[in-house]
Amino acid sequence: MSPNEKTLLRALKGETAIPPPIWLMRQAGRYLPEYRAIRAKARNFLDLCFTPELAVEVTLQPIRRYGFDAAILFSDILVVPHALGQRVWFEEGAGPRLEPLRRIQELARLTMSGLHETLAPVYETLRRLHMELPEQTALIGFAGGPWTVASYMIEGGTSKDFAVAKTWAYRAPDEFARIIDLLVESTSEYLIAQVEAGAEVLQLFDSWAGVWPEPGLRRWCLEPVAEIVRRVKVAHPDVPVILFPRGAGPLYEAFAGEAGAEGLGLDTTVPLVWARERLQGAVTLQGNLDPLLLVAGGAALDQAVARILDTLGAGPFIFNLGHGITPETPPEHVERLVSLVRAWRPGA
Amino acid sequence: MSPNEKTLLRALKGETAIPPPIWLMRQAGRYLPEYRAIRAKARNFLDLCFTPELAVEVTLQPIRRYGFDAAILFSDILVVPHALGQRVWFEEGAGPRLEPLRRIQELARLTMSGLHETLAPVYETLRRLHMELPEQTALIGFAGGPWTVASYMIEGGTSKDFAVAKTWAYRAPDEFARIIDLLVESTSEYLIAQVEAGAEVLQLFDSWAGVWPEPGLRRWCLEPVAEIVRRVKVAHPDVPVILFPRGAGPLYEAFAGEAGAEGLGLDTTVPLVWARERLQGAVTLQGNLDPLLLVAGGAALDQAVARILDTLGAGPFIFNLGHGITPETPPEHVERLVSLVRAWRPGA
Repeated sequence: MSPNEKTLLRALKGETAIPPPIWLMRQAGRYLPEYRAIRAKARNFLDLCFTPELAVEVTLQPIRRYGFDAAILFSDILVVPHALGQRVWFEEGAGPRLEPLRRIQELARLTMSGLHETLAPVYETLRRLHMELPEQTALIGFAGGPWTVASYMIEGGTSKDFAVAKTWAYRAPDEFARIIDLLVESTSEYLIAQVEAGAEVLQLFDSWAGVWPEPGLRRWCLEPVAEIVRRVKVAHPDVPVILFPRGAGPLYEAFAGEAGAEGLGLDTTVPLVWARERLQGAVTLQGNLDPLLLVAGGAALDQAVARILDTLGAGPFIFNLGHGITPETPPEHVERLVSLVRAWRPGA
Repeated sequence: MSPNEKTLLRALKGETAIPPPIWLMRQAGRYLPEYRAIRAKARNFLDLCFTPELAVEVTLQPIRRYGFDAAILFSDILVVPHALGQRVWFEEGAGPRLEPLRRIQELARLTMSGLHETLAPVYETLRRLHMELPEQTALIGFAGGPWTVASYMIEGGTSKDFAVAKTWAYRAPDEFARIIDLLVESTSEYLIAQVEAGAEVLQLFDSWAGVWPEPGLRRWCLEPVAEIVRRVKVAHPDVPVILFPRGAGPLYEAFAGEAGAEGLGLDTTVPLVWARERLQGAVTLQGNLDPLLLVAGGAALDQAVARILDTLGAGPFIFNLGHGITPETPPEHVERLVSLVRAWRPGA
């Protein structure tokens, strides 16, 4: 035990912290009035990500308000295709849009040569956060999993069934592997640079992992993510990594056992007892409150929080949501959540 | 062994048929030119469902073309809220729309009094199919799971995150239970009448089961579906039931062990070895080819079909997709699939 170490880092070393550390995916976001005020100052969402003053401020807002155990860099997973040269923009209320990559010949237009230059403001944001965060607050950097990022690059935005991207992978796996390889390479570089700018923990969001049968999940999600973890650890052996292969179902077991990461983020659907028995012996678990319970509040919220803590809190664990916080969340429900987690003791 | 019995019924009694029976979810649909020709004759989609001449014809089309081992009634899960008195319509290309149920007081407008009268054309379709189907072809009736149907009734259509319906269930579970109870009651009556009109097998589609944490999945999906199975079997003890709790993940085990159904439809993401080891001892499995593999065709299709058959074909099994067939599917890929399944032998 290292009592002076940040709780999140202790949990990711396999220690059981009582109460467990807590942070929330998308904790800096539209549910906070102070976020909306800053957002109004930026021309568009990408500008907000690439303006260190503003990105630092919105990253710090939920830390000031709730005292979370970790701050997560305010950014977006699509800054990587943007930095590779693909056109990316955000339409208010419509989600991300990209000029879609539809032929393998178009891949030649994308290049890593400007990667770090384009992403320099992100690194600057991390350097400032590293200086400004309270000493007990860990700083999390992140990126998207190659499959999830590739799906946006190919579909041109969010998708219902990922038909274009998946059909491409099925018809021409060698072509598809070239896209994934470019993302493995660029994402590894990006994450290594994030650590060098001050990130103490890295999270990989593979939000659309849950659309593949097992062979595709292994080839296009698990293996690329494991390769990124391997490369990051060659450069920085001690930086812990949390994977979030949303929707992986029973194959969460493969991510726990085969990916080389310290932490595993559970989506809302993962059964808790199953996770304790099959996953928690291998990795630190993180999750998995339904964000809609934070919207609903009341008895349902209290019961669900207690159930998660009572089932997973006796092992290495980080309290979080099972998906990003939604804009409709009343900030006082987050306050209630934090107080419940902080007051929790085993067997109480 | 009963060599003269239909292969699908034998499989649902736990027999291992070599090769296994095959049918495809949404096998009567827009990918077939002969379907599009009939669809053009009906004023709208609900009219197609409620006109026995046309519904019989589109149900039979894929049987004639491919010789599937089962025909599934051509209808829609939303005929139940329609028959309860809710306004339901289908907009071309936009999916189903309903006048949304948003306050519990509005539930009083819905009534079972006209249920069988409104659904009489569906029963007539089944009676005609019962007469017209080849003797080896089983006739499947179906309905939606109460949660999935309730989600459409409340959201007013398809939804991205089911925020309105789930938040309602979290905030006022007693109110939500009244909606689910009405659907358990009406769906049970509907399915019993389907059996009496000639359906030999019933499938319950709980397509949106995968959005709940475990407690919600048990309370709003598994328990209502198990109650429907119980009621159907009071009336018709011998009619086999197949459940399709899409996205249930590790909780597929609970559906295999606790729901009282003979068959379990696997979605595309369920790992095959896991399913064989954890589920196939308790129920007949059905599934789970990715519909996009049927779009892609080629080596990827051949390999995936072989993998499914080699892993699950040595136990009680029904070949199917893991989700409905898509309109972009080339009919010749379905032909290829059927020939691969029919040619399969264990260990070959």
